[in-house]
Amino acid sequence: MTEWFGDGRPCDTISADDRGFHYGDGLFETLAIRDGEPRLWDYHVERLQGSATRLGLQAPDESRLRSDLLSALDQSRADRARCVAKIVLTAGRGPRGYRRAGRGPATLLTGISDALTPSDSCYRHGVALRLCNTRLAVQPQFAGMKTLNRLEQVLARNEWTDDSVFEGLTLDTDDRLICGTMSNVFLISGQTLVTPAITRCGVSGVMRRHVLTLLDEAGLECSVRDVGVEELGSSDGVFLTNSQFGVLPARHCGKHTWQPGATFHRVAAMIRASGIEEGPV
Amino acid sequence: MTEWFGDGRPCDTISADDRGFHYGDGLFETLAIRDGEPRLWDYHVERLQGSATRLGLQAPDESRLRSDLLSALDQSRADRARCVAKIVLTAGRGPRGYRRAGRGPATLLTGISDALTPSDSCYRHGVALRLCNTRLAVQPQFAGMKTLNRLEQVLARNEWTDDSVFEGLTLDTDDRLICGTMSNVFLISGQTLVTPAITRCGVSGVMRRHVLTLLDEAGLECSVRDVGVEELGSSDGVFLTNSQFGVLPARHCGKHTWQPGATFHRVAAMIRASGIEEGPV
Repeated sequence: MTEWFGDGRPCDTISADDRGFHYGDGLFETLAIRDGEPRLWDYHVERLQGSATRLGLQAPDESRLRSDLLSALDQSRADRARCVAKIVLTAGRGPRGYRRAGRGPATLLTGISDALTPSDSCYRHGVALRLCNTRLAVQPQFAGMKTLNRLEQVLARNEWTDDSVFEGLTLDTDDRLICGTMSNVFLISGQTLVTPAITRCGVSGVMRRHVLTLLDEAGLECSVRDVGVEELGSSDGVFLTNSQFGVLPARHCGKHTWQPGATFHRVAAMIRASGIEEGPV
Repeated sequence: MTEWFGDGRPCDTISADDRGFHYGDGLFETLAIRDGEPRLWDYHVERLQGSATRLGLQAPDESRLRSDLLSALDQSRADRARCVAKIVLTAGRGPRGYRRAGRGPATLLTGISDALTPSDSCYRHGVALRLCNTRLAVQPQFAGMKTLNRLEQVLARNEWTDDSVFEGLTLDTDDRLICGTMSNVFLISGQTLVTPAITRCGVSGVMRRHVLTLLDEAGLECSVRDVGVEELGSSDGVFLTNSQFGVLPARHCGKHTWQPGATFHRVAAMIRASGIEEGPV
């Protein structure tokens, strides 16, 4: 389970009047803690604050987010060298009804959990994927954000119980490939890469952003555009990105199989050189 | 505020690990309590249980729902003759991650609040509507249900602060008229009626169902089909349905104006005759 903290104290409950509970009126971030520090902190803060602005929520400033996080880490029993932090921001308490009443204090919770680490074999040989039946609705108003409205991801993830399947890819209701239930996806063709545009639905992951930045700096071509699901079949390789595991190659999805090739290894080495040290390169 | 009860006791908090809070992994019902009894109880129970099945959630049986509700009413300070009950059902507590771990106990909360009653003038002369900019995403997998994923309704309702506007109508991303933020909508042309199909998005309200049943029994024609927003302009009248207020005529929406006419009055009289006694007929 997760240890939760709010206002600098352990906090294992929230108000039954919280708008996060009733309406999913809020946002979250899931951060990797490495050597006591949150990884890709600036990207997480930027996404949380940018999303809060889009939803009309009050976002705490960076120093408040950071002090809450460090205070939670101080009080937690988890291994500060390697654990997971989750920040949840909601519209706070309110009376019944969709209307937000005034500008009450937001709810800010920080949770600390143990890290779950994929095996070396996942990093070396790739992970098994499936295509989910659950579709992501096209809703540009929420695209990119990690809101507390996550029923699509819940239903998609609960389509399978076979632990040999690591992740499910989700399409939108127009058959475009968007992302995994908890990851973003990149497709490789020779030396060029493509990742689905996150403009209609899906989450703009911080590790996706980091990879895109590194690719750009290295002069490696990566287009961000609409991707049809059929492009999985014409790709030389596929990999996933996520704040916790970094980059993981895919081994197969349905009838398509891949092996981590030269371009994937180049990307993985770049990621490692940037300080994201997870499984084998 | 609302008084909350769980497992037969007052309960003003929920676990910080509740999946309703983190993912909106749950459902709710908002019931009108009149003379100590929940109105349209069978419809509420049927929707909650049917939706739970669709989401793969464990729903309590009718007797458990009823005993929790009556116990909450017994303990509440609200006026049992006229108040609001809210039932919230979630997937319960769970570790971090979209996957539901096993079949842990669901969370079942019952909240009691004071009733908010529209003025007699609203019932006599109609209410003002607006068209919301926030669109409902097309997601047939959730259509009809009151899930805890309600950010679209929150953003739509927070588009206006002018208290003279009673309700906002929402379109889907394909420009179809679907429903209000907290109500369903019927359009009148002469003696015939139409209400939007709730097959792609929107909530299938219990009062909408009650009205459709009464219209059918009375031999009044009402089609349930896709409705373009332009049909507002060609309608003789428009009314809203909701579990609390019953039926309310609309006075205007943007440039369109209406007056409660003969067909509306016939519907309102039918509703009253069925035992739904709210404002003036």
